[in-house]
Amino acid sequence: MATVYVYRRAHFSASHRLFDPKLNEEQNAEVFGGCSNPNGHGHNYHIEVCVAGTPDPKTGFVVDLKKVKNILQEKFLNFVDHKNLNVDVSFLSGINPTTENIAIAAWRQIAPDITEGKLYSIRVFETENNFAEYRGE
Amino acid sequence: MATVYVYRRAHFSASHRLFDPKLNEEQNAEVFGGCSNPNGHGHNYHIEVCVAGTPDPKTGFVVDLKKVKNILQEKFLNFVDHKNLNVDVSFLSGINPTTENIAIAAWRQIAPDITEGKLYSIRVFETENNFAEYRGE
Amino acid sequence: MATVYVYRRAHFSASHRLFDPKLNEEQNAEVFGGCSNPNGHGHNYHIEVCVAGTPDPKTGFVVDLKKVKNILQEKFLNFVDHKNLNVDVSFLSGINPTTENIAIAAWRQIAPDITEGKLYSIRVFETENNFAEYRGE
Amino acid sequence: MATVYVYRRAHFSASHRLFDPKLNEEQNAEVFGGCSNPNGHGHNYHIEVCVAGTPDPKTGFVVDLKKVKNILQEKFLNFVDHKNLNVDVSFLSGINPTTENIAIAAWRQIAPDITEGKLYSIRVFETENNFAEYRGE
Amino acid sequence: MATVYVYRRAHFSASHRLFDPKLNEEQNAEVFGGCSNPNGHGHNYHIEVCVAGTPDPKTGFVVDLKKVKNILQEKFLNFVDHKNLNVDVSFLSGINPTTENIAIAAWRQIAPDITEGKLYSIRVFETENNFAEYRGE
Amino acid sequence: MATVYVYRRAHFSASHRLFDPKLNEEQNAEVFGGCSNPNGHGHNYHIEVCVAGTPDPKTGFVVDLKKVKNILQEKFLNFVDHKNLNVDVSFLSGINPTTENIAIAAWRQIAPDITEGKLYSIRVFETENNFAEYRGE
Repeated sequence: MATVYVYRRAHFSASHRLFDPKLNEEQNAEVFGGCSNPNGHGHNYHIEVCVAGTPDPKTGFVVDLKKVKNILQEKFLNFVDHKNLNVDVSFLSGINPTTENIAIAAWRQIAPDITEGKLYSIRVFETENNFAEYRGE
Repeated sequence: MATVYVYRRAHFSASHRLFDPKLNEEQNAEVFGGCSNPNGHGHNYHIEVCVAGTPDPKTGFVVDLKKVKNILQEKFLNFVDHKNLNVDVSFLSGINPTTENIAIAAWRQIAPDITEGKLYSIRVFETENNFAEYRGE
Repeated sequence: MATVYVYRRAHFSASHRLFDPKLNEEQNAEVFGGCSNPNGHGHNYHIEVCVAGTPDPKTGFVVDLKKVKNILQEKFLNFVDHKNLNVDVSFLSGINPTTENIAIAAWRQIAPDITEGKLYSIRVFETENNFAEYRGE
Repeated sequence: MATVYVYRRAHFSASHRLFDPKLNEEQNAEVFGGCSNPNGHGHNYHIEVCVAGTPDPKTGFVVDLKKVKNILQEKFLNFVDHKNLNVDVSFLSGINPTTENIAIAAWRQIAPDITEGKLYSIRVFETENNFAEYRGE
Repeated sequence: MATVYVYRRAHFSASHRLFDPKLNEEQNAEVFGGCSNPNGHGHNYHIEVCVAGTPDPKTGFVVDLKKVKNILQEKFLNFVDHKNLNVDVSFLSGINPTTENIAIAAWRQIAPDITEGKLYSIRVFETENNFAEYRGE
Repeated sequence: MATVYVYRRAHFSASHRLFDPKLNEEQNAEVFGGCSNPNGHGHNYHIEVCVAGTPDPKTGFVVDLKKVKNILQEKFLNFVDHKNLNVDVSFLSGINPTTENIAIAAWRQIAPDITEGKLYSIRVFETENNFAEYRGE
């Protein structure tokens, strides 16, 4: 009864601005630097979803990754791709869209639909050099 | 006595077809989609082997990665590179060559030869976006 | 009236076998090495289409890359993705599916549909290390 | 007197919205799709500057790429990195920020400062799959 | 109280030679192969630092990655970038500069400065195919 | 009679130091910065060889890339991989090992052996961000 971790990676392009509404412009610039530019900036994000489980003896799949692809599309990418993360995304409303918070929000969006295997981790890459992983704990 | 995880990555190009011999063509197409094309399709696979252990105080190596490279070549890559995974590979005989099953099979092929450090995980990438990891449990 | 070269990159997974039907197995093995494995092998191919032209003053586009994406999908990717290039692809019938020949065939498939700007080059990557470019000449 | 083409690659993260101010929201959505989302979206852009010339016999450099790096930083990246390309960038004012137009604008910004060798081409990557090159003609 | 793992990736170019001073040239060549070339060779190294913790409710950060970037720069990269790891780096003095030992040394250099969240792992990539991870245990 | 450009990419790890023997240490540091560190530094170099020609009607090859691979190995990589470019490489003797000069030297090493098709260009990547191309003119 081997446990295998399967991964599905996807991409989205979005804009955001990091800021704390309780701080003024100057204070936000101090805390968040260029990331608090009032008119925003953006990224080509990558998201990597990991599901852990035992391969089905008939199909050889922990879970059909096409299903994971579709869940990711319908419950997450459709809301964030080509969007402004501060303004356009209901499930990020009132949340500072850091990579950390995007990973947690993505988990909450897709976890209920992962019914084969167990959602194990979500990684969100803001750039090649900055990324965050959430494991549901 | 630090534990370090060392990784060796390698590549192979192979064809495969996903299907369940107990299903007919139509049913296979439904379960496996384009991956069940009767004449097969193929991938540039990547495999990533991780060995955990304590660096030898003299060499500074957990294990000489050239040895891991050679084991990987002789016990795995020589059997799968430029091959048809459904037809040409004895250790995949009767196994649906999903990424999950390839990772488990690779583990069984190379684990007996890893005698310095401990084989910790094997990742197999079918594409940049779909991959699987097995940790021997 | 600036000339700009715009590029669209896409991906497909296919199997193939390199061989000359006038040669026997042994001779094919000598000429094509592992690439002539009778049961085939496969790759994650990348294709890069370049169109040259003057950006439209209103849209700022040489050509809407979504159109290029769609042409590439309908006239090329739908025929080759998750296929066996020796058996399943009418426009490669009787052609040895080397990277060179795939690039020429892709040009012939999509050139007639590129009506804004001028098709300038097509690159086909068999692996990260082996690729071919055709410029229609 | 060999001619060598030297390249310097850099990165910036920015938001943008594609739209034609003479069109209404609906028409913009039809022409530019998701790229015309009124609140914008964003990318991790890459820019690749190529300078052609003869290596200096003493230094072996066509041009010191650190100089190219600095010119690129001061004349281009400082204006666009972590910015909104529709609002924050004087040299893109009134210009639809397509990849084509960003490449032309980058050329105009840095060409006057390239005094060793000759500016040969500028490539701007909006994503890994969509990019544009301008050669000054 | 979610735990999130945040990563910062950076790069350095360095030369090194693997050898054991107690062995002669021939013995070193046997143990370390081309890596013991007496005049050295070199790599573009990548280093990936992971810090685990709970995102601050106000900033949404486990730790501001700009801080991690600065610590990495001041305590590690400034000592190794464009250097000879056998000769120029005090904290590697007397240590064979294998990927394993570089990862351990990097941990010791930066751990004391990581005061928000907890340093979780450090990965050092010697090449795309050879890398090592240390988790402080 | 189509012309196709075929590419073969390879890798080597080497150390080097940039300096002009007619300058003193201080002057070298001023001209070459960190690249003139007296004890050297190093890179994972990539080299990309392009050969142009007409595909052979029987094989579909401009030139068998395995031959190009072998020429590249024997006439270039064997001399530079895991070497110090200032000291160990006869064909770079007395030449400042800039990316420009390495590309020209590689051309001279392999051009005589390219007898099918015509050597068209050689690109040498010192890092992902700095590279040079020579076209034999």
